[in-house]
Amino acid sequence: MSRLVMKFGGTSVADMDRIRNVARHVAREVRAGNRVSVVVSAMAGKTDELVGYVEDADVDFDRAEYDMVVSSGEQVTAGLLAVVLQKMGIAARSWCGWQVPIETTNAHAAARITAIPPENLLAAWDEGKVNVIAGFQGIGPDGRITTLGRGGSDTSAVAVAAALGARCDIYTDVDGVYTTDPRIVPRARRIERISYEEMLELASLGAKVLQTRSVELAMVHKVPLRVRSSFDPPDSPLQVMADGTGPGTLVCDEDETMEQQVVTGIAYSRDEAQVAVRHVKDKPGIAASVFGPLAEAGVPVDMIVQNVSTDGLANITFTLARKDLRRAVEVLERERENIGYATLDTADNVAKVSIVGIGMRSHAGVASKMFQTLSEKGVNIEAITTSEIKVSVLIDEAWMELAIRALHSAFGLDAEDETRVS
Amino acid sequence: MSRLVMKFGGTSVADMDRIRNVARHVAREVRAGNRVSVVVSAMAGKTDELVGYVEDADVDFDRAEYDMVVSSGEQVTAGLLAVVLQKMGIAARSWCGWQVPIETTNAHAAARITAIPPENLLAAWDEGKVNVIAGFQGIGPDGRITTLGRGGSDTSAVAVAAALGARCDIYTDVDGVYTTDPRIVPRARRIERISYEEMLELASLGAKVLQTRSVELAMVHKVPLRVRSSFDPPDSPLQVMADGTGPGTLVCDEDETMEQQVVTGIAYSRDEAQVAVRHVKDKPGIAASVFGPLAEAGVPVDMIVQNVSTDGLANITFTLARKDLRRAVEVLERERENIGYATLDTADNVAKVSIVGIGMRSHAGVASKMFQTLSEKGVNIEAITTSEIKVSVLIDEAWMELAIRALHSAFGLDAEDETRVS
Repeated sequence: MSRLVMKFGGTSVADMDRIRNVARHVAREVRAGNRVSVVVSAMAGKTDELVGYVEDADVDFDRAEYDMVVSSGEQVTAGLLAVVLQKMGIAARSWCGWQVPIETTNAHAAARITAIPPENLLAAWDEGKVNVIAGFQGIGPDGRITTLGRGGSDTSAVAVAAALGARCDIYTDVDGVYTTDPRIVPRARRIERISYEEMLELASLGAKVLQTRSVELAMVHKVPLRVRSSFDPPDSPLQVMADGTGPGTLVCDEDETMEQQVVTGIAYSRDEAQVAVRHVKDKPGIAASVFGPLAEAGVPVDMIVQNVSTDGLANITFTLARKDLRRAVEVLERERENIGYATLDTADNVAKVSIVGIGMRSHAGVASKMFQTLSEKGVNIEAITTSEIKVSVLIDEAWMELAIRALHSAFGLDAEDETRVS
Repeated sequence: MSRLVMKFGGTSVADMDRIRNVARHVAREVRAGNRVSVVVSAMAGKTDELVGYVEDADVDFDRAEYDMVVSSGEQVTAGLLAVVLQKMGIAARSWCGWQVPIETTNAHAAARITAIPPENLLAAWDEGKVNVIAGFQGIGPDGRITTLGRGGSDTSAVAVAAALGARCDIYTDVDGVYTTDPRIVPRARRIERISYEEMLELASLGAKVLQTRSVELAMVHKVPLRVRSSFDPPDSPLQVMADGTGPGTLVCDEDETMEQQVVTGIAYSRDEAQVAVRHVKDKPGIAASVFGPLAEAGVPVDMIVQNVSTDGLANITFTLARKDLRRAVEVLERERENIGYATLDTADNVAKVSIVGIGMRSHAGVASKMFQTLSEKGVNIEAITTSEIKVSVLIDEAWMELAIRALHSAFGLDAEDETRVS
């Protein structure tokens, strides 16, 4: 018997009809002989409603109380799915985070899972039951309810799978991970298999299908992760084959991925802004005088470019999340005298486009092919960062879609037919 | 420092503005030097919404899962009230039933409280905190969430007060217990003090202001219980005096109540139906043949009248809750041959009117004064039951309001001015 954790997000459990649909997916896996634990999110919109109440009570709320309130949404879904499964003749019981227990740090609203003793879940399996677990929540060292931060249910699911030695299927509203966003590139293809490292890069570079933390956790614990659609027909035998082929996208170890393209996927982010600190003295410590105060103010910085002009003065340009732009400017204006710059220029009409692929390690010239492709389309590059398996460029947002389409073709990712986006 | 448990029902915490109003009531008591624990219900309508989900999932639902889902409502209110109190500068923390812990039997959806170890709540008091406790819920012997049945938050509050050696103020949407329903008798008066026994009779005879179970529990543990309005101005010094006078109604031991009327209050219930089993043999065992099968079918019976007619045949008449009438008739029709009756007559246009007062014990003639009063108004009595401190009559529902008004005057309960119903 195979051990399986199935995770369903908020849109998949948005109302009773969808919860019944989820139950049919679960029933199919149970009848196929799997031992199943399910991790559920709150019904879509419910968490926002609860957060709204808390913020109405106090914008500067106590995070322990926030967790008390907000965790109730997943508790409701878990109980309801257990009832629906029972009505279908599938033995099931629900679990709050504290009942499992899913033990976490004390960092309310942003807790990290420290341990999941598997005994209770294994005992319920031995009684022939499906475990239905409230995602997103746990219990802190002082016995209070914690939550894992937004989107934490993916992390709950992977952690439960690691504790149970199970594989993990993440059901979502898309049918897998795509070479890029099919709304931008109609010829984007579903990726059959992708390595943890590549998925991690894509997730952290803007692909929204999986939470970065959950991919990290899956990589560390070697939990095979499948991303698939909860809107697939639930009763049909869309089984995963013994060789791993099947619906959705399998995220797995590099050596289990097949021979493939040099570039696996293209991610993008519109959530970018750029700051140029112009005409500073080109001397040691100048970068520290810019980035020290930003770090103290809690503003994360992404790409950094420093260049020296002919007059011996330097420009320091960097990118950051668009939402942090105002705060960054406040900090730098306060520090103007100390840094000694002439002007501060900002832009929030920039976007980041990234190509990701493990094949880059063994193929030279990937970055230059990217720059060449963009140059042929007349796209100017404002900044560049690279890692072993990705190249990111900052460009004018107006050119973003054009750039993605050009790169998707250039690296051979186009499907023969247009993708149908469900 | 006085120890106080304050309980707020669903209409008192129906939205954020009302929760802020509740917090001002709590703040007033804290600033007056009391050690305060608060018990809250779910926001009005929330429990019905959650029950609706469960019933949609399966009409024949698992009660353990029902408790998982339905208990979430109180959890939300407790967290929100704690946040609002903190914002007002009052140290506070919330508690789920399992965190206190409020230990209960395993009877899901109708659990009884078995113990409340007070250590955690006392420790929070020692840290200067207000405890905000989710009502209606507890934890069963197997570590699963239980609920106490509808209206169980009153019971939670009294049980917490008993565990803490505190008095208990029940805040509701009326400003106390009245001699009868002011919507029927505009001259109804608020009762200043009432004994546990009288309150118990009134509650079980149809007065809806307090749950019967909570009054029973208060009586056993001698918890002084005050019923008062959450719509009173929260910041004004509506303090309870040392002699116990104050807003609302104090429910307390008989020897603490003052000299008073023979009749303290008049209760009524429209939720009544009557069944007449006519022309049965007047022989031993005939009553058992009627009421045995009803008991087996779980139909509780209230008043019973048996009389023998001149032809040696008997009639057995009894009353029951209107919602049980159809089931009772089914049972009796099935048992017709065994009982051997001629006809089965039913009526659901009947009502029960009851007078309650500890003074009856020492005053003769209370019942006959009641019958005389009704007779003078031409009200026919269908059935009578009595206890040491109450007399109930079954009458035609059409005469109910007339009967209540006549009795209210006859027993000297009318106020000089009309009551303003808030």
